[in-house]
Amino acid sequence: MNKRFVIIGGDAAGMSAASKARRENPNLKITVLEKGAWVSYAACGLPYYIKGKVKKLKDLIAFSPETFRKERNIDLRLHHEVIKILHEDKNLVVHSRDGDYKLGYDKLLISTGAIALKPNIVGINSTGVFTLRDMDSGKNIKEYLQKNLPESVLIVGGGYIGMEMAEAFHSQGITVHIVELLPHVLNSFGSEIAKVVEDHIQKYTTLHMGKSVQSIRSIEEGKLSVQVTDKQSENNIVTDMILVAAGIVPEVSLAKEAGIELGQTGAIATNQYGQTNIPDIYAAGDCAEATNVVTGKPNYIPLALAANRNGRAIGSTIAGKATRLVPVAGTAVVKVFQLEVATSGIVDIKIARDNGFNPIKITIDSHSRAGYCPEAKTIKISLVADRESKRLLGASMVGEEGVSKRIDIIATALNGKFTVEQLENLDLAYAPPFSPVWDPVLTAARVLNGKLNGLK
Amino acid sequence: MNKRFVIIGGDAAGMSAASKARRENPNLKITVLEKGAWVSYAACGLPYYIKGKVKKLKDLIAFSPETFRKERNIDLRLHHEVIKILHEDKNLVVHSRDGDYKLGYDKLLISTGAIALKPNIVGINSTGVFTLRDMDSGKNIKEYLQKNLPESVLIVGGGYIGMEMAEAFHSQGITVHIVELLPHVLNSFGSEIAKVVEDHIQKYTTLHMGKSVQSIRSIEEGKLSVQVTDKQSENNIVTDMILVAAGIVPEVSLAKEAGIELGQTGAIATNQYGQTNIPDIYAAGDCAEATNVVTGKPNYIPLALAANRNGRAIGSTIAGKATRLVPVAGTAVVKVFQLEVATSGIVDIKIARDNGFNPIKITIDSHSRAGYCPEAKTIKISLVADRESKRLLGASMVGEEGVSKRIDIIATALNGKFTVEQLENLDLAYAPPFSPVWDPVLTAARVLNGKLNGLK
Repeated sequence: MNKRFVIIGGDAAGMSAASKARRENPNLKITVLEKGAWVSYAACGLPYYIKGKVKKLKDLIAFSPETFRKERNIDLRLHHEVIKILHEDKNLVVHSRDGDYKLGYDKLLISTGAIALKPNIVGINSTGVFTLRDMDSGKNIKEYLQKNLPESVLIVGGGYIGMEMAEAFHSQGITVHIVELLPHVLNSFGSEIAKVVEDHIQKYTTLHMGKSVQSIRSIEEGKLSVQVTDKQSENNIVTDMILVAAGIVPEVSLAKEAGIELGQTGAIATNQYGQTNIPDIYAAGDCAEATNVVTGKPNYIPLALAANRNGRAIGSTIAGKATRLVPVAGTAVVKVFQLEVATSGIVDIKIARDNGFNPIKITIDSHSRAGYCPEAKTIKISLVADRESKRLLGASMVGEEGVSKRIDIIATALNGKFTVEQLENLDLAYAPPFSPVWDPVLTAARVLNGKLNGLK
Repeated sequence: MNKRFVIIGGDAAGMSAASKARRENPNLKITVLEKGAWVSYAACGLPYYIKGKVKKLKDLIAFSPETFRKERNIDLRLHHEVIKILHEDKNLVVHSRDGDYKLGYDKLLISTGAIALKPNIVGINSTGVFTLRDMDSGKNIKEYLQKNLPESVLIVGGGYIGMEMAEAFHSQGITVHIVELLPHVLNSFGSEIAKVVEDHIQKYTTLHMGKSVQSIRSIEEGKLSVQVTDKQSENNIVTDMILVAAGIVPEVSLAKEAGIELGQTGAIATNQYGQTNIPDIYAAGDCAEATNVVTGKPNYIPLALAANRNGRAIGSTIAGKATRLVPVAGTAVVKVFQLEVATSGIVDIKIARDNGFNPIKITIDSHSRAGYCPEAKTIKISLVADRESKRLLGASMVGEEGVSKRIDIIATALNGKFTVEQLENLDLAYAPPFSPVWDPVLTAARVLNGKLNGLK
């Protein structure tokens, strides 16, 4: 009998695994169980769908269910929800519209993704309160905008989604309030970079920093009253709509119930091949941990590329070609109105210390083009290194142009475990419309290297 | 007596050396002998000055002579030309407006740069024929444009300068012809990338590929007749102006005459500290060789960053802190009308073979943004690796956006001597407005890695 490879969850990690396994092994019996209606979609594109840049929801679908079924011979079952993993006899209990059934597996991949965090706030389930995570939630927001024509929105959380959605709402002429409990929006990028972002978004939105939402109350048709507080003060904001963008948590309920080990991060722990503690069960994507390239330790960095890549690696392994998962640097970029904001590696001093480093951080201003080009924009870069090893640990940057791919210099250097001196010595591209002779990254590295050597 | 550090040539390498030496050692007696009127200028900005983007020639000057003299205590002598190096008694013969004189040195840096190549063509010195290399030549072109209002220009050479100047002239409403002897413009970028550039510039200019200029003849006031030929054909183009952009050659006449060793490239050979074969004489910038980071061998890659950086390293060494020169990857980017075109490392199969590699090259098309973003542009990437070691050797790329800094991923990977697999495994930045989930570089690496493994 052909080996049965069953996958729970049909997004990035799951469908990548299924497709790769099929390419490498035509004899596998591959089944994907997806509890919802969508597979293989670009959730990261949802803010641009809501903004109207992407016209149709289906434009975000990379491959249709039919493609997987017909062209890749994958038994893709939509609206089939796994409700139990019986690993001792290698069976799943699946709930479908036609009733529940058992399905056996030889190899199992858990790629159940993550769910939007819903803080424990009174009234969080009121009409007009949304989260954005999957296609249905994106569709809900779009429909609400079209039907209810809200004039104001309050966004709870100043992370990636909060920032992208602030722009999406603002572009529809909607007044935007952002409430963030942490000292800064994009807090993990470091205060120097975050401050530039805050100054920028204050032109378009009202920021409520260091504050939290205590309660939400429907006060009349389509109106919500939000109680926003910090230690000193309390105020009520009346809004037409609320988006809770307070982060995500790995969807591990099935795994946990089955006795699959979670890591300290709360996501599923795996070895370097994506295997969990239970034989023949793998995990990848936003429900699983990944190895941090800087620390070598498990990390929870739920980003699209790693989900795709690790799903693919596991598909390959299950097809018969053992393939290691790849460490992540946590490289991320986000467009915030006119700004590009990016980060890679570890820029938080406390996190660096917690991982045994003796960190030093510098921040510099440079330009996106030769200084004499009238279009040159300021780029601000924070660079963090370890004092002992002089290794680069991470960077964040912000600017109106030239940031989104410049961060990849850092991602590449982190992969190579470069010292700051090595970073300083890179032969980076220069032409007046694209960079100063000394690229901002080189200037930052030079300043940091000077400090590293001065301090010794 | 304080040590005398004398520098011949006051552009990137020379002034970087002078400034760095001063910062590290306040006691050095530093003298810079510059035969022209300009120091510390951004020659790379000249096309943008001629285009009118940069308003004044002096905007291209990084630091004024007064800054060097007063703030950095550097004895900067303009219009002082060294006509002989007497290394046996460590003296220079200097020609100035006030007569010739001798100047002794303890340490000498030759940073005489390069000169524009003037092919041996009948009539090459006619009025209306220009080269672009230094500030005076840029000024000459600008003045000629303003006074003579030429309606047409013929550019000899389709390299960086030819491409940038084609755009500069076209932006002034001037009809542009380009004559290139090699099979392609930007020939060293590889034919796949070059073809995209050629298709693009044909919208704005007339290309004469694989042809050479045989003669130039003044036919009437302000008109030149240019005989352009290949093996099969010959035609005459009448033009108002000619720009010879046929490359540059290192300015080594002084060095050669003094018995300083040149490398196989014809540029001055140095060791890893920039020292020539003659004691206490150093060389850096466009007159000297540099070490290629891919091959580890001497190379002639005259680019601005290396000139600045190596000048700085030599300044540091002479100030008392031995500092190695840094290998170059030959990373370059050029804006050609709406295109960004970039390269790093070795992409030429023949050059790779000549350096002992067994090269393989792939070319792919991808996108600058997520495929569903309406603004996404095509990016074409050629990637070259060595079949035996599976090491990355180089890349070229072209596209309307997202190329200029994406090439730096390659530059960084080359510095780290990455295999193609390592490149494929990078955690690069992704957000829909800036990249597909799989960055074009990752897609290219995946395709090449597949071939590398399939071929074994």
